[in-house]
Amino acid sequence: MAEGRFYLSVLALSSLGFMCVLFTVYWMWSWHGGFAWDGSILTFNCHPVLMVAGMVVVYSAASLVYRLPQSWVGPKLPWKIAHASLHLLAFILTVLGLVAVFRYHNNQHIANLYSLHSWLGITTVFFFACQWLLGFAVFLLPWASLWLRSLLKPVHVFFGASILALAMASVISGINEKLFFSLKNATRPYSSLPGEAVFANGTGMLVVAFGLLVLYILQASSWKRPQVGITTEGQPLLRERE
Amino acid sequence: MAEGRFYLSVLALSSLGFMCVLFTVYWMWSWHGGFAWDGSILTFNCHPVLMVAGMVVVYSAASLVYRLPQSWVGPKLPWKIAHASLHLLAFILTVLGLVAVFRYHNNQHIANLYSLHSWLGITTVFFFACQWLLGFAVFLLPWASLWLRSLLKPVHVFFGASILALAMASVISGINEKLFFSLKNATRPYSSLPGEAVFANGTGMLVVAFGLLVLYILQASSWKRPQVGITTEGQPLLRERE
Repeated sequence: MAEGRFYLSVLALSSLGFMCVLFTVYWMWSWHGGFAWDGSILTFNCHPVLMVAGMVVVYSAASLVYRLPQSWVGPKLPWKIAHASLHLLAFILTVLGLVAVFRYHNNQHIANLYSLHSWLGITTVFFFACQWLLGFAVFLLPWASLWLRSLLKPVHVFFGASILALAMASVISGINEKLFFSLKNATRPYSSLPGEAVFANGTGMLVVAFGLLVLYILQASSWKRPQVGITTEGQPLLRERE
Repeated sequence: MAEGRFYLSVLALSSLGFMCVLFTVYWMWSWHGGFAWDGSILTFNCHPVLMVAGMVVVYSAASLVYRLPQSWVGPKLPWKIAHASLHLLAFILTVLGLVAVFRYHNNQHIANLYSLHSWLGITTVFFFACQWLLGFAVFLLPWASLWLRSLLKPVHVFFGASILALAMASVISGINEKLFFSLKNATRPYSSLPGEAVFANGTGMLVVAFGLLVLYILQASSWKRPQVGITTEGQPLLRERE
């Protein structure tokens, strides 16, 4: 891929990801009074922002580390550490996002984990935790054989993309649910598409556009490390096994 | 892949797909009074069933046609026709599903296309229509060159999987939305997880499990036509171009 086109794509993607988070912050700030950590509804407002930031944007950045041509040459260890660290950051943001909603629910005596949004969301986070732990144990620690790494690599790659797709579905159902709640007794209901509805629906569609672009880059061969006759899939990290 | 394992997987996948439709029918039948085409709420009940059947289950069956080993030998034309026909059936069911909800909304003077579920859903159907038309024009009609087919094949494959992922997100947000509507004034609200909520949430999770399995099979190399040294990607269908 031409260098100019590559950096233009990176810029476009980063801007789109940044906009996803910024739009979610603006939605919660302008229509729902901003943020707090006191168990009030302002604590809930941290939930959409942290989930979009953690499970979608930072998660995507972490997943795309190996699409940087700089990662294709030299030792792989720093890039593996960057991949794992960024995913850990995504996971921490995600967990904080969960804490925000549980804290708000518990403080207001609202039931947890009843909607399909919450069932799918918690399943996605569970998959993410398993994926991170398995990735750490097999691809970062030195014990796993080349055979095991080669066996698990396609599964790791598939679940990496799937978790992002599930996160997108969770975000869409979450925004939809939040709008039905917040516009229930509004002077202009959701069905009349007031400003908040258009803005938040638009934010959801932006998340979908961003997610699709990331999924495209993840699978497109022009973005992958060029194959030079030898397989680097199972390249051990900390020491050579066999 | 061993023959026994292959047919066991096909059986498991078919059963799961059948269950997705059956569970949606049972949900609408047992908790919402069944089906009609008269513009009443019973017309709406056709919407989830037709969307799950069309956009998820038949769509998946159509997408998986080339994963049948029988399609790897002999002329490709019958399999291309099967692929396009099954997708056309999926599209017809999908359009009927849309007609059901528009008919109900118009009859009851409810606004159309305001929720994020509907925005994402209609976008997904639009992508599906474009994908089918482009697939028909480029891969089924004889005019396109091998070069054009090779160029568009990865895009066709990527959008094929993406449309299924978007359909899953639409189904999840749709079930979530429907449950908030139907359990709004119920004696046992959604938050207390009455029978309907557990059943419909479970149906949504079943759709996700089915969709993930289909996406896995679509990208897993063990399910793909074995490469025998020549590329068949751009094989023209109705006549050889070059």
